[in-house]
Amino acid sequence: MKALFYTGNKTFEIQESTPAPLQPGEVRLKVAYCGVCGTDVHIYHGNMDKRVQIPQVIGHEVSAEIAELGEGVTGWQVGDRVAVRPLQPGAEHPSDFGQNHIGKNLKFIGIDTSGGMQQFWNVPAYTLHRLPENLSLKLGALIEPLAVACHDIRLAELRKDEQVVVIGGGPIGMLIALVAQHKGAKVLLSEINGARLELAASLGLATVNPREEDLVTRVEDFTQGAMADVVFEVSGVQAGVDAMTQVPRARGRIVMVAIHAQPKPVDLFRFFWRELKLIGARVYEPEDFDEAIALAASGQLPLEAIITQVAPLAAAQEVFETIDGNPAGLKYLLACQ
Amino acid sequence: MKALFYTGNKTFEIQESTPAPLQPGEVRLKVAYCGVCGTDVHIYHGNMDKRVQIPQVIGHEVSAEIAELGEGVTGWQVGDRVAVRPLQPGAEHPSDFGQNHIGKNLKFIGIDTSGGMQQFWNVPAYTLHRLPENLSLKLGALIEPLAVACHDIRLAELRKDEQVVVIGGGPIGMLIALVAQHKGAKVLLSEINGARLELAASLGLATVNPREEDLVTRVEDFTQGAMADVVFEVSGVQAGVDAMTQVPRARGRIVMVAIHAQPKPVDLFRFFWRELKLIGARVYEPEDFDEAIALAASGQLPLEAIITQVAPLAAAQEVFETIDGNPAGLKYLLACQ
Ligand SMILES: NC(=O)c1ccc[n+]([C@@H]2O[C@H](COP(=O)([O-])OP(=O)(O)OC[C@H]3O[C@@H](n4cnc5c(N)ncnc54)[C@H](O)[C@@H]3O)[C@@H](O)[C@H]2O)c1
Ligand SMILES: NC(=O)c1ccc[n+]([C@@H]2O[C@H](COP(=O)([O-])OP(=O)(O)OC[C@H]3O[C@@H](n4cnc5c(N)ncnc54)[C@H](O)[C@@H]3O)[C@@H](O)[C@H]2O)c1
Ligand SMILES: [Zn+2]
Ligand SMILES: [Zn+2]
Repeated sequence: MKALFYTGNKTFEIQESTPAPLQPGEVRLKVAYCGVCGTDVHIYHGNMDKRVQIPQVIGHEVSAEIAELGEGVTGWQVGDRVAVRPLQPGAEHPSDFGQNHIGKNLKFIGIDTSGGMQQFWNVPAYTLHRLPENLSLKLGALIEPLAVACHDIRLAELRKDEQVVVIGGGPIGMLIALVAQHKGAKVLLSEINGARLELAASLGLATVNPREEDLVTRVEDFTQGAMADVVFEVSGVQAGVDAMTQVPRARGRIVMVAIHAQPKPVDLFRFFWRELKLIGARVYEPEDFDEAIALAASGQLPLEAIITQVAPLAAAQEVFETIDGNPAGLKYLLACQ
Repeated sequence: MKALFYTGNKTFEIQESTPAPLQPGEVRLKVAYCGVCGTDVHIYHGNMDKRVQIPQVIGHEVSAEIAELGEGVTGWQVGDRVAVRPLQPGAEHPSDFGQNHIGKNLKFIGIDTSGGMQQFWNVPAYTLHRLPENLSLKLGALIEPLAVACHDIRLAELRKDEQVVVIGGGPIGMLIALVAQHKGAKVLLSEINGARLELAASLGLATVNPREEDLVTRVEDFTQGAMADVVFEVSGVQAGVDAMTQVPRARGRIVMVAIHAQPKPVDLFRFFWRELKLIGARVYEPEDFDEAIALAASGQLPLEAIITQVAPLAAAQEVFETIDGNPAGLKYLLACQ
């Protein structure tokens, strides 16, 4: 079979490889599509060379058909269409508080272990979620990032009619904005990239470019002075961290979705002064995958529009180079057969 | 009557002054005791000269007897013993979300308006809370800071048997630790001041000096690896901000009590990684005063031990100088008659 190996130095290579032997409890997947995540781009840039094991197959946004069942796997059949929740919980640590999706010994499949950018891929059966008949395998590859959005919105305890500001309109911010709006919230998306702003507007989202107008004033206008009930920080930059404390109402909630690798100055006075809440959110739990699948299958989200390009696995190197050069794109999928 | 005026330049002066005319809805209080708050020390240092109106009487931790009722005041009688909740809500702003204790147009009585360090003091009747017979006026002056602690613990949604780390054992941190322990939490107080550590230990609190032992290791031991359910940041320093993200468990709550005047670097990665929550908390609501009074009257908290010194109003200048020079002290009261 063909597999795409990250070999370091911004390089991917397609190689012939023999599928790993199937372990008890695992299934062999015939991978349909694998989305390219921001984390994959970090890996491509060499920022995670300490964590991945070069040469390594990466990728964790997968839709697939089951090709083979390992020993002891029940409830699944060859041919079943699935999405993968790429979390492999390790031994529970006392400080995990039972939250095994963020446990100390968690492995992220496709980063800490071999990933989905190959024709066949072995994963534990417990990672699988069934895709309904009416959901295409293409959209199935969006379930993972969509589950991130569902998780973030669930932890925000977002209610209908609440006013939301999403800071950052990359794939994750865009999905959060769309799901929040679908749930009856009034959403304003803040983004600085013209193409992403245009796409968001074309999908019916209210948008603002904080480099062109004052964000606080715009949120005041948008909410008639009430300010945001919920803010999602999904930009990952200092400007987003500065904005996140400026736009909520008293007792507003801020969800920290972005990964800020370094400590950044935060206006802690504002947390005190307006009794703000900051809620950290990481990946997803099984129920978030279930919700993402139901939402995608409902056909009520414009998910096709999120997909910038579908390219064959063999073109992966070009795709990563395109993403580097074309920040206007949103979600790129690799077709793995 | 005698009143203590802050006249700028680290100076207080006792002056003869005529009580202000009593407005409708106000009561005239015969002030018994007025505690010295950290904010009063900030004012003394000149840090708030833009906010106070020099010369100004300050002070907001007051116990008193009612001396006179203004027009339209009902439900109170001359001679009633009271504590004052020093908040004067202004017009509600749409972004206040009904939280008038932190409203945009709130005035803090004794900072933004004339305070309690005088013999007689006019305040709106709605600020009063009745002190029960068995609660002394001396302890009555501790109700305001105790209500801060009750508010912080309420916003933390602290439950019995939870494990708590309090960072900073000044008057506020010490009261938070004592109330949390009284409510059945297992509390560890982190403090660097030897005298305050000793006092805390003498009151039955577990303590740690993070300059002498590694705080994270100590919290691991204290919680048998489970780490803190709730952390209160009450130190106001960068070391406290650094520690607050290191010691909670997955999904642990951090309550931001301290006032950090400047933005400080915060480990936002840790919020994401462990799904932490940060909860800003400011002053109190009426129910927190009610709870503080009930707690104080129950006699179950060692409140007398918190009081370092009771000095006459005329000795205020020396008291402020002592506080500056003697960080071992905790709570100083001025006797105002
Ligand atoms: N919590 C999780 O489990 C989880 C999962 C996936 C991704 N993430 C993180 O979420 C973040 C977003 O992911 P993504 O894939 O959408 O990344 P992305 O980089 O594509 O999106 C960030 C967006 O923010 C925009 N931006 C930059 N400066 C801005 C500003 N000042 N104001 C408003 N917008 C601004 C950028 O133009 C970009 O479109 C990343 O930090 C990523 O690591 C977290
Ligand atoms: N949220 C509110 O409404 C409210 C109300 C009152 C006070 N405050 C704030 O709460 C904070 C505490 O008030 P306070 O009157 O107790 O002040 P304080 O200055 O007396 O107490 C701070 C304590 O932290 C200790 N400390 C310093 N460095 C430390 C470290 N590295 N680790 C552990 N402890 C350390 C100090 O020794 C001191 O005892 C202040 O920031 C104050 O402004 C907030
Ligand atoms: Zn991802
Ligand atoms: Zn105070």
